[in-house]
Amino acid sequence: MSAKPFDAADFRRALGSFATGVTIITTRSADGTPFGLTVNSFNSVSLNPPLVLWSLATSSLSLPAFQSAPHWAVHVLAADQDGLSGRFAKRGEDKFAGLDIETGVEGVPLLRGCMARFQCRTAFQYEGGDHVIFIGEVLSFDRNDAPPLVFHGGKYAHATLRDPPDLQPRSAHLAGSFGDDFLGYQLGRSHFRFLAQIRRYLTDAHLSDEDFYVLSALTLKARLTVADLDAGMAGILDESGHRALASLIERGLVRSSATDKQIYELTDSGRDSALRVISAAKAVEQQVLHRLGPGEAPVLKSLLARLLNVIDPAANALWQEKNADEGAPAAAHMR
Amino acid sequence: MSAKPFDAADFRRALGSFATGVTIITTRSADGTPFGLTVNSFNSVSLNPPLVLWSLATSSLSLPAFQSAPHWAVHVLAADQDGLSGRFAKRGEDKFAGLDIETGVEGVPLLRGCMARFQCRTAFQYEGGDHVIFIGEVLSFDRNDAPPLVFHGGKYAHATLRDPPDLQPRSAHLAGSFGDDFLGYQLGRSHFRFLAQIRRYLTDAHLSDEDFYVLSALTLKARLTVADLDAGMAGILDESGHRALASLIERGLVRSSATDKQIYELTDSGRDSALRVISAAKAVEQQVLHRLGPGEAPVLKSLLARLLNVIDPAANALWQEKNADEGAPAAAHMR
Repeated sequence: MSAKPFDAADFRRALGSFATGVTIITTRSADGTPFGLTVNSFNSVSLNPPLVLWSLATSSLSLPAFQSAPHWAVHVLAADQDGLSGRFAKRGEDKFAGLDIETGVEGVPLLRGCMARFQCRTAFQYEGGDHVIFIGEVLSFDRNDAPPLVFHGGKYAHATLRDPPDLQPRSAHLAGSFGDDFLGYQLGRSHFRFLAQIRRYLTDAHLSDEDFYVLSALTLKARLTVADLDAGMAGILDESGHRALASLIERGLVRSSATDKQIYELTDSGRDSALRVISAAKAVEQQVLHRLGPGEAPVLKSLLARLLNVIDPAANALWQEKNADEGAPAAAHMR
Repeated sequence: MSAKPFDAADFRRALGSFATGVTIITTRSADGTPFGLTVNSFNSVSLNPPLVLWSLATSSLSLPAFQSAPHWAVHVLAADQDGLSGRFAKRGEDKFAGLDIETGVEGVPLLRGCMARFQCRTAFQYEGGDHVIFIGEVLSFDRNDAPPLVFHGGKYAHATLRDPPDLQPRSAHLAGSFGDDFLGYQLGRSHFRFLAQIRRYLTDAHLSDEDFYVLSALTLKARLTVADLDAGMAGILDESGHRALASLIERGLVRSSATDKQIYELTDSGRDSALRVISAAKAVEQQVLHRLGPGEAPVLKSLLARLLNVIDPAANALWQEKNADEGAPAAAHMR
């Protein structure tokens, strides 16, 4: 790493290496118009007196409102408020339209569902190059436990706590053996132990693991060929999938389609059976994820989805394509 | 959420809900003494001129050095620099002892291995209650791609990027079917597909999946009873574990101990076989984690360890206890 000549885009990238939370800062101008913008230059300054700061570009259309406003509020956003972040990062439109707004000190508009809110009186305004630094004295605040929205490298990120000390991996670096942080072990054991919690419902329904996989696949694609099944289950079921299919047919849970013998579908009792087991499995999942923690669960799922994309890009064979589109904010006040 | 009366500890907690990166700020006093401290009140201010800021408690022993220093450097820490963060968060001792220091502008000490470094000239010092706000003009900077060290709620955290748009879950909320973000599906498929990449090495060694599990367990505990095996493999192998053990004995890979027939151990050829497969499996793991990304891999492992702790607290049966101890910094300049 050696110092480089100065480049503005590169400077932005370097600044972006410092992770931040995301805030929305609101005020109301003298004529009653609400203002608000997404800001990640927030930070704490002083405990006594309680002071916080943030900075706003001198080019911002909101600058006059904040410069003349005696009060404003900082909202620290929770992980599920990326939509709100995006809305307040854009210029122009009525950002408050349709939102359920509370009224804070001196009429400052307050948003709901945030991790923390600080209602402030402007204490100082300082020069900061192409930005003005606002220092606010915190008059009141409130706080909610929630996972935070994080911004890093120009993108939204999740934050998860590091390992507690009692969860450090053991024997991880013994040559010739696996540590308990070997990925294959973690995946295998998690899979088997998760399945073990569902297996009692499978037993009640007289279903083997393989039956369960095939029934589940048939709830996704109402009409499945053996080729579909082979493609979707490659490396997982192989021949045992064919045996399970034959057994499900024999027991009247699956049948050949009336119009095409090569296509298989659930019978009514097969659908009943699948529904019962799937409901139970989803309940098990909810309990497990609840105990893992509300901040951790979505991150684990996101990382497993990415892992699967790495080790098995064809994993999606059984699901139809359906893309949602949501990127990071085109954020005038975030870098 | 309603505004509460003012409480200092609660105010700290509310401020801590805003996630930040972690920096170390260094300078050298007129007499040549290096100073450095861990700070999370850093933020960017201005692009043109390039300005950054941070704040330092008026009670800090380092304050006079920074107030009289014309130059200082900000180091944005990477995820693996928590040790450095802890060292510079403490008072008193020679924090630079034993570190490989570079020399920056005007002799300012520079640390290595950071995500970004900003060498600054003091532009302004502003009043900020019980802190002084330092505004620095950035004279030069450098940057490395690395996962960031994050601080949230008084603790270190990992940051991972959110789902790219093309990884949004499909069909997740259809009643009566699983989405591809169902945890059981993600774990099962990841496990099977990961194992599929190892299976070719197993086939070469004439080992079944179950043989592989038993051999791996025997590399951890040199002398294993059937009861150990049953406890460690509960819900995973059950009877097939006993069959695998018998088969491994028959093939001369495992034997009963000479002193106690109830205890099983690897033979030399069993150890060779295990070593070969374990090396191959670790290589597969490395490739997979490399493609997942350096920031994501440790977070996935950490979350899977926590998941396993939730669904299978007895999972550790096969590993001896060995705890590392490392907490968050007793950080004078972090909240």
